[in-house]
Amino acid sequence: MSARNAFYAQSGGVTAVINVTACAVIETARKHPNKIANVYAGRNGIIGALTEDMIDTNKESAAAISALMYTPGGAFGSARYKLKGIAENRAQYERLIEVFKAHDIGYFFYNGGNDSMDTALKVSQFSKTMGYPVTCLGVPKTVDNDLPVTDNCPGFGSVAKYVAISTQEAALDVLSMAKTSTKVFILEVMGRNAGWIAAAAGLAGKNPGDAPHIILFPEVPFRKRDFLKRVRECVAQYDYCVIVVSEGAQYANGRFLAEAGTRDAFGHAQLGGVAPVVANMVRESLGYKYHYAVADYLQRSARHIASDVDVKQAYAVGKAAVQYALQGKTAIMPIIKRVSNSPYRWTIESAPLGRIANKEKMLPRRYIRKDGFGITEAGRRYLEPLIKGENYPPYINGLPKTAKLKFKPVKPQVGTKFVV
Amino acid sequence: MSARNAFYAQSGGVTAVINVTACAVIETARKHPNKIANVYAGRNGIIGALTEDMIDTNKESAAAISALMYTPGGAFGSARYKLKGIAENRAQYERLIEVFKAHDIGYFFYNGGNDSMDTALKVSQFSKTMGYPVTCLGVPKTVDNDLPVTDNCPGFGSVAKYVAISTQEAALDVLSMAKTSTKVFILEVMGRNAGWIAAAAGLAGKNPGDAPHIILFPEVPFRKRDFLKRVRECVAQYDYCVIVVSEGAQYANGRFLAEAGTRDAFGHAQLGGVAPVVANMVRESLGYKYHYAVADYLQRSARHIASDVDVKQAYAVGKAAVQYALQGKTAIMPIIKRVSNSPYRWTIESAPLGRIANKEKMLPRRYIRKDGFGITEAGRRYLEPLIKGENYPPYINGLPKTAKLKFKPVKPQVGTKFVV
Repeated sequence: MSARNAFYAQSGGVTAVINVTACAVIETARKHPNKIANVYAGRNGIIGALTEDMIDTNKESAAAISALMYTPGGAFGSARYKLKGIAENRAQYERLIEVFKAHDIGYFFYNGGNDSMDTALKVSQFSKTMGYPVTCLGVPKTVDNDLPVTDNCPGFGSVAKYVAISTQEAALDVLSMAKTSTKVFILEVMGRNAGWIAAAAGLAGKNPGDAPHIILFPEVPFRKRDFLKRVRECVAQYDYCVIVVSEGAQYANGRFLAEAGTRDAFGHAQLGGVAPVVANMVRESLGYKYHYAVADYLQRSARHIASDVDVKQAYAVGKAAVQYALQGKTAIMPIIKRVSNSPYRWTIESAPLGRIANKEKMLPRRYIRKDGFGITEAGRRYLEPLIKGENYPPYINGLPKTAKLKFKPVKPQVGTKFVV
Repeated sequence: MSARNAFYAQSGGVTAVINVTACAVIETARKHPNKIANVYAGRNGIIGALTEDMIDTNKESAAAISALMYTPGGAFGSARYKLKGIAENRAQYERLIEVFKAHDIGYFFYNGGNDSMDTALKVSQFSKTMGYPVTCLGVPKTVDNDLPVTDNCPGFGSVAKYVAISTQEAALDVLSMAKTSTKVFILEVMGRNAGWIAAAAGLAGKNPGDAPHIILFPEVPFRKRDFLKRVRECVAQYDYCVIVVSEGAQYANGRFLAEAGTRDAFGHAQLGGVAPVVANMVRESLGYKYHYAVADYLQRSARHIASDVDVKQAYAVGKAAVQYALQGKTAIMPIIKRVSNSPYRWTIESAPLGRIANKEKMLPRRYIRKDGFGITEAGRRYLEPLIKGENYPPYINGLPKTAKLKFKPVKPQVGTKFVV
């Protein structure tokens, strides 16, 4: 059998290490030129396939591809674009297969979260019904850490490290001035419906009195009275109170503390702005001087302080995806399996996409303290290994170096336009 | 002359490297036991002297003091507490001298910004009129970089580095998803009335089209129409627009874009929350999907990515302050003098406190681009050397190590209470 081409696409919110996975896919494919002739990367993710707008990664030097190891963001462009069900929009799937056929694409590596695993599965099934079976591999990526089956998700370890460090650093700042200045500090973090990122902040404090004093998880219904009581107690007892609030924090009835009122392409509510809401509660009810920070994209792009474990795992899933594909496996996703906690050991296995697609893994209750405001020892045992090690990028003139790609387009073969 | 004691206090907003200066003061003093018997550190800054609540740094091990090198925040506690004029509140000054006398304090090192230099000067003058002359040294520290005479201020280089890196990283994130998601990203940074920190974000972009596309300086009157026009142009031209806004951004009439409505102990307006204000303008007028981040304390406590130049300068000013004091100099502050830009060379000199106290150094117009939305090459030449080099803290289990001090109190000698 002659070598065929592969299509690689990034999907959904990017991470500090999604390009590490891209690097792994391309480098591993390059080691098997007899099986994979070229990796075409979708410009703006799956949209690049639909619009026949792909990047010829063979035109990139080994050095440029290697520089993806320390470049945050999605180098080829990612997209919040979900393929609908096949019944609803068969044309999209037909177009995808048409483009794959025209470019002799036999492998599809889809680097994303829950929704993307669903798409990869559907493409795998549909390609068979079209008589052009494509080997479809999901490659995990999400800072939200909410994919099932896998022990954790590439991208999470680095945001977890960033959030834990930022909490520790800001807490030292607040503590040192609490006597005459800010007493309450609120840090808003990402995570959507899952409290994994918020939980990671808990790593910053080990002893009673250590910050963060309060974590507001999406999994724990927010009760304003209990919350304010705890803030008052912390200020009385420790002179200050550091609060980490998940963007997905919500009341018992499911209403978010802050909802921007808009929805993304996947139909998810756009969150953000919960920190000022919580700050207002504190000001109005308790009158303490407060400050708040909204980490937003800073947290998920902070390659400068990426977790070394995360970088290694992001590489490992990309490499494994290519290896599984070359073994003829399809409709699967490489997963990270935890072998032991201490010392932390992990390995890569695979799981069928059907077990992963469209499912969210919430922070388990056993990782959340009984009072709902912090993490347990079990939670700490799970989280701590994931932030271990520092994987620093190279610097030039005080700023991190990043990959400079040529982005040579693949010559269109289909030629017809497709409107997404 | 027998050895006397020194009093060291941290004042105002803390930085990622103010403890580096504390370390330098203590380590340098320890090298001259025949002249300085002990360094007493004020708990919560100058308040510690007024209330006779001081920390005996001689009880701290060399290793603990050395760990201050990589510990953000103010290790001994800082304070937003300004001594009033001598005429207004003579009792405060008398108390200070009373405490200094009781503890045989002959040296006063005040580590702070503009207001603190004023206090150090007043204490120097008052101590003479009281017949108990104290050698008073100001030691510069402010992330705002707004002290005059000195080329730059310790603390600024690290926040500048953090802001430049964060802008670069977040921009890569936004760019990669702009096709289907966020088009406008807004990062709010500190700096009060001076645009130095905002300007540092400009280091992230060198070529046309590079982020940040718009910087909103306090020094440039905000014009909504011009601003929105530029945002629209950027999105049209580059697909996305990264905006860095200083908390001190203001209209031509001096009104801040966002004012929390409260004032601190120095009478300064408490700023913050300008990013959501700018985001709302963009949403209402242009309708682009946006995200915003508020770096707040994260930026000034980010010791994990401190500038190596900043760390070295923070140490140098502390060391020089003690050396000047031992030479009998008083009412001065060590300043950083730039010798050359490329290669960057600097040295320490001294300047009289009277030239520094209560003066603010704004970002000069020649560092701001003609259109008001970015920095010039001259600005870049000034800023770039200050963020050079990475000075990483040691890590344990994925988190930076920090100093663990004993905080042994100095036994009170005066004994009477003083209410601040």
